[in-house]
Amino acid sequence: MNTKFTDSEINIIYTPIGCIHSPYMKVEDMPIQPTGAINVRGKITLFDEYITATKDLEGFSHIYLIYHFHKVTDWLPLITPFLDDQSHGLFSTRAPKRPNPIGLSVVKLLGIDKNTLLIENVDILDGTPVLDIKPYVPAFDQPESARIGWLEGKAASVENQTSDERFKN
Amino acid sequence: MNTKFTDSEINIIYTPIGCIHSPYMKVEDMPIQPTGAINVRGKITLFDEYITATKDLEGFSHIYLIYHFHKVTDWLPLITPFLDDQSHGLFSTRAPKRPNPIGLSVVKLLGIDKNTLLIENVDILDGTPVLDIKPYVPAFDQPESARIGWLEGKAASVENQTSDERFKN
Repeated sequence: MNTKFTDSEINIIYTPIGCIHSPYMKVEDMPIQPTGAINVRGKITLFDEYITATKDLEGFSHIYLIYHFHKVTDWLPLITPFLDDQSHGLFSTRAPKRPNPIGLSVVKLLGIDKNTLLIENVDILDGTPVLDIKPYVPAFDQPESARIGWLEGKAASVENQTSDERFKN
Repeated sequence: MNTKFTDSEINIIYTPIGCIHSPYMKVEDMPIQPTGAINVRGKITLFDEYITATKDLEGFSHIYLIYHFHKVTDWLPLITPFLDDQSHGLFSTRAPKRPNPIGLSVVKLLGIDKNTLLIENVDILDGTPVLDIKPYVPAFDQPESARIGWLEGKAASVENQTSDERFKN
């Protein structure tokens, strides 16, 4: 097995395909997951060269957004997330202070008009660079049953919680 | 609304946290989705500095892997995916030739031993750089119902299909 990466695999360079616009202007106002952002609307403005690539996307009710946590500058191996008073390994959380600060959200797609995608259940900071959009497909993305470790009994309680300053830089 | 990005938001640089090892040595041998890779095992070798960050991850039965399609060198706005004979907008597909070639898979986590994560339902090429690992949480990630556009009636048929050369460079 080979774990030796080439230079272009060590320094992976991405560039935004567009920008997310949301009501969340500050980190501390944000919901901590999309389930805490039900009915919150936002939009994505794509750069014009990507308009053709959105063909047929409107047929999907939900999409994955992959985006860059642009306000994050460092990462922590152990963190105490919003939903617990114990510390957990970073990779067992969705906290933004990650080695590669990549965000992932499932949002509802309400419609597309040229380069603008209207979305709902948005838990993302205004001005966030979008890296990729993928269709959400239950047959690919929903395991029949899932254990959720330290989040057991906690994941359903996020709806009324907002972010605080603990992940602020 | 501001879509002006800073330099560090235009050139986003990530680096692998580890490497995926799988039985798929060539693009054309690969299944086209994790549902076509049921029971296929692989592993992730993390760089040592990320071991602490896996604490508590074993409590989760499924994880998201976010990875870099390292064999992809260009992208196409319209593509004809494996599951159809019509072309579709790239963002309405999971095809790897994307503006930012980022892959996303839900895999089963069987266990962790130091820097090695044993995983199942692996649809990823051997040697792929891993960018992020996130816990899969149904309350965050499963919409109650989802429309799937052009994939309607096709998404369930992926189990017996393998990749071919159309996404090869």
